[in-house]
Amino acid sequence: MTDQELTRQLKVSIQTIRLDRMELGIPELRERMKLMAERSYDQVKSLPLDEVIGDVVDLQLDKSGISIFEIREEHIFSRTQIARGHHIFAQANSLAVAVINDAIALTASADIRFVRSVHLGEKCIAKAYVQSNPARKGKAKVEVLTYVGEEMVFQGNFTIYRSDGEEQHEGGVDHDNRH
Amino acid sequence: MTDQELTRQLKVSIQTIRLDRMELGIPELRERMKLMAERSYDQVKSLPLDEVIGDVVDLQLDKSGISIFEIREEHIFSRTQIARGHHIFAQANSLAVAVINDAIALTASADIRFVRSVHLGEKCIAKAYVQSNPARKGKAKVEVLTYVGEEMVFQGNFTIYRSDGEEQHEGGVDHDNRH
Repeated sequence: MTDQELTRQLKVSIQTIRLDRMELGIPELRERMKLMAERSYDQVKSLPLDEVIGDVVDLQLDKSGISIFEIREEHIFSRTQIARGHHIFAQANSLAVAVINDAIALTASADIRFVRSVHLGEKCIAKAYVQSNPARKGKAKVEVLTYVGEEMVFQGNFTIYRSDGEEQHEGGVDHDNRH
Repeated sequence: MTDQELTRQLKVSIQTIRLDRMELGIPELRERMKLMAERSYDQVKSLPLDEVIGDVVDLQLDKSGISIFEIREEHIFSRTQIARGHHIFAQANSLAVAVINDAIALTASADIRFVRSVHLGEKCIAKAYVQSNPARKGKAKVEVLTYVGEEMVFQGNFTIYRSDGEEQHEGGVDHDNRH
């Protein structure tokens, strides 16, 4: 539970919650999830962990993954305070790449929908599911659903080009050029 | 023409080209295009110009737009030196929003293809075309094609929610939730 949820449930101030947490040596939710996750999840293989946009809190290679990304000042449109689409996309896309159990993974294409606007301070929880058989090399299909609380805010179907990195990959991911 | 193209054509070093340009008071291609564009193109209405990813060099509201975005160190995967998809997407998406002649424009959905990988130092030229009738309010269809030289590297079809900003827009851009 977040500190916010605890204040509502226990009807005390957020300061009380935070002081009690500190006294008991309990880190905040985000840190707790990270700590838990670090013990149990697979290592990202397709890119360095710090190149994943958002904090990876669960990862089962070639199966599924979860990341958390908080919308801050630098992610919003100044006029509307709404999160810019490419940040929501970046979280989902980098998670879709991170779940691939290969040394090289590149996005070939994607169908995406921004279901509702995301606002400053909201925490986006992206969940990626590998749809295709990992034994089938070449391309993987990954679905990513992003939530704020229980509300879905983004949905994307990604096709990821995958390779074990032994063959040299130059240029085209998809050669259907349309000049 | 770029300095590179001039060195090839005139068979002299890039230093010679640059020195001659400086002597004659001719700025580099990018600056020349910007200067030209500043004189002739429409003003972005749907967001502040500095929130557009890339340099807008042409804009005809509700018709078309062109932007240039150079791939730098901060845009690439460290391992492969290939540009990360979300930066290519961000250029295209923000241009698709910038061509809309309304105070508020938000991306509802997109179908995108990364046609070939883009590398460090390459200049991406995105061209956006509004496909739908601007008189039809509510949603606009915008196609964006991104090129490096004459090669297409990205293709996207965006659906942009548009509004003149008078009605209050809260929450859902598209209510087809799939929980």
